[in-house]
Amino acid sequence: MTETVITSKEERLKRLVARVHGQPKVPVAVVYPCDKESLKGPIMAAEAGVIEPILVGPAAKIRALAGELNLNLANYQIADVPDSLAACAEAIALVHAGKAEALMKGSLHTDELMGAVVTRANNLRTPRRISHVFVMDVPTYPRPMLITDAAVNITPTLEEKVDIVQNAIYLAHALGIPEPKVAILAAVETVNPKMPATLDAAALCKMADRGQIKGGILDGPLAFDNAVSTEAAKIKGIHSPVAGQADIFLVPGLEAGNMLFKQLEYLSFALTAGVVLGAKVPVILTSRADSAETRTASCVIAALFAHANRKNN
Amino acid sequence: MTETVITSKEERLKRLVARVHGQPKVPVAVVYPCDKESLKGPIMAAEAGVIEPILVGPAAKIRALAGELNLNLANYQIADVPDSLAACAEAIALVHAGKAEALMKGSLHTDELMGAVVTRANNLRTPRRISHVFVMDVPTYPRPMLITDAAVNITPTLEEKVDIVQNAIYLAHALGIPEPKVAILAAVETVNPKMPATLDAAALCKMADRGQIKGGILDGPLAFDNAVSTEAAKIKGIHSPVAGQADIFLVPGLEAGNMLFKQLEYLSFALTAGVVLGAKVPVILTSRADSAETRTASCVIAALFAHANRKNN
Repeated sequence: MTETVITSKEERLKRLVARVHGQPKVPVAVVYPCDKESLKGPIMAAEAGVIEPILVGPAAKIRALAGELNLNLANYQIADVPDSLAACAEAIALVHAGKAEALMKGSLHTDELMGAVVTRANNLRTPRRISHVFVMDVPTYPRPMLITDAAVNITPTLEEKVDIVQNAIYLAHALGIPEPKVAILAAVETVNPKMPATLDAAALCKMADRGQIKGGILDGPLAFDNAVSTEAAKIKGIHSPVAGQADIFLVPGLEAGNMLFKQLEYLSFALTAGVVLGAKVPVILTSRADSAETRTASCVIAALFAHANRKNN
Repeated sequence: MTETVITSKEERLKRLVARVHGQPKVPVAVVYPCDKESLKGPIMAAEAGVIEPILVGPAAKIRALAGELNLNLANYQIADVPDSLAACAEAIALVHAGKAEALMKGSLHTDELMGAVVTRANNLRTPRRISHVFVMDVPTYPRPMLITDAAVNITPTLEEKVDIVQNAIYLAHALGIPEPKVAILAAVETVNPKMPATLDAAALCKMADRGQIKGGILDGPLAFDNAVSTEAAKIKGIHSPVAGQADIFLVPGLEAGNMLFKQLEYLSFALTAGVVLGAKVPVILTSRADSAETRTASCVIAALFAHANRKNN
C-alpha cells in the first residue's frame, strides 16, 4: 500500500450530529453572543438540530448583529439584559430555573464566565473541581480520544487529577462508553522518581483499585505510543488492559496537553470538540480560532452530556 | 474535497536516502551490535548506501548473529573487542583516530554509551550540552520538523535550553536550512508568569537578539497552532517571522516533547529520525521499538551532520 485515504471533517461531523437527532433538543443559555462568531456558532448548531439556544444579552445589539449576518432569530428566545455581567447572572438563573441545561460562551472574556460559574454564591459547583475535556475524532485512531486537561488546569496536583479523571469518565459514560480505558500519560511507562507524572500515575491507579475513582479502567504511567499502539506496548513488554486502546488520555499538565490536541487538530485531521465539566451543567467554551465544525461538535458533546445529566437527576 | 491522500513512509524514506547518494560514505562506529535489530539496522543503512559501518564488538558473536540473519558481513570492518565496555572505549578511539565520524548504539544500554560519551576524560564533549533532536517528515507539514529535546533532557533550565536550541540550529544548517525558524513552544503565545516556559521563551529570544544564540530566527512563546499555522497566528493577531513556518520546535520539557513526537509518528504518518548532538560526533540512539525506516533515516541525518562537521573542521 503506498497511500492512505482520510475522510473529510464535514463527513465525520455529520455522523457526530446524527447522534443527537431524535432526542429532545437541549436548551443552552448562550452568554453574551455579541460578535459574529459567537452568534453564528449557536445558531448553526440550532439549525443542525443540536441545541435550543437562549440568547442572553442586549436584544437590540444581538438583533442588529443577526441582521448583518442575515440570520433569522424568529425561532429563538432572547433574554434581554444590558451587559455581560447581567448576562452571566441571567444565564445562571435560567440554569437554576431548569430552563437551561448547558452554558455556552459568547463574546465575553472566558475568565468572566468561568468566574461566575465557580463563584460558590452562584451555586453551580459540584464537589468536583472544574476541568476541561477535548473530544477528538482522529481518522488514524479507531475511537474518540478524550484528552484532559489541556485547557483549564495548568499544573494539576494529584488531588486535582482525581477530579479531572472522574469528570472525563462521566463524560465518556454520556458518550456511550460504559467503562472507558484511561491512559495516564507520562514520558515513560516506568515509575521514575525524577518524573512526578509517573508517581501521580501510580497513585491514581491505586485510588481506582480502592474505589476512590469510579467507572473506568485506569493504567499508567504510559507513554503516548503505549497508549495508542498495542504493538508498541508489546515491544516494551507492557501488559495492560488500557495500552493500545485508551479512550481517555490524562495529560501530565496543560503544556503537554495543549500541544497534543493542537497537533491532532492541525496535523492529524482531527475533528475537535471541547467542554468544561465539574459544574452542575456543562459549559461550552469557544475560542476565536475555533472552526464552525468545532463549535457545532462542542454543542453535540455538551448536549449528549446534558441528556445523561437529565437521566441521572 | 472529501478526502486527503498521504504518501507512504517508504516513498518518503527513499527521497531522504537520495540526499546522501554521491557523497562519500560516513564511517560509523556501531557500538556492540549484539542483537538482531541492532545488527540489522546499520547493515541495512550500509546497503542503502548511507553509512560505512565499523562493527565494534565480539567478532565471533557478531558473525554468528549475521549467520542467523543471513547477513553478509564480508564488506564490513569488525573491531573485535570482548564486551560492551571495551566496545565503547574502542569506538571512541576510532573517533579520535579520525576513523569514525559518528557513533551508533548497538544492544548495550543507552546509559552505558552516553555515559562514555559525556565522561570528560574521553574528550568527546564540546562546550555545549548534549541534546537530542527528532527530525520528522510529516505529510501534513510542508517542511521537516526538528523537535528538541524530547529524549535526553527531562526538564531543561534556561541555560540548558540555549545549548539545546543551538545544537538544533547547527543540525538544521547541516540539513540545508541556512537560517532555521525556531518556535519556542508553550501552551500560550503570551508571557505568563505562571508558565515558566513562556518566561524562558522571552529570555531566549533576547539572547538571540544579543548574539548569544546564532544562526536561526527565534520566536516564542508560541502555542503549537501558531507555530504550524499562519492562519491560527493571524486570528490571534501574532506578527512573527516564525509563526506558521517553524523548522525547529523547542519543547518546554521532555514530557510534552515525547507526546508530540510519538503522536506525529503514530497518528500523523511521520517518518522519524533521531540524533544526539553536542558531542564531537553525532550519536545515533535507537530504541527497540524503532522501525527499520527510523533506523535508516537516523543514519541519513547523522551522515548529513557528519558531512557538515567535516567541512567545518
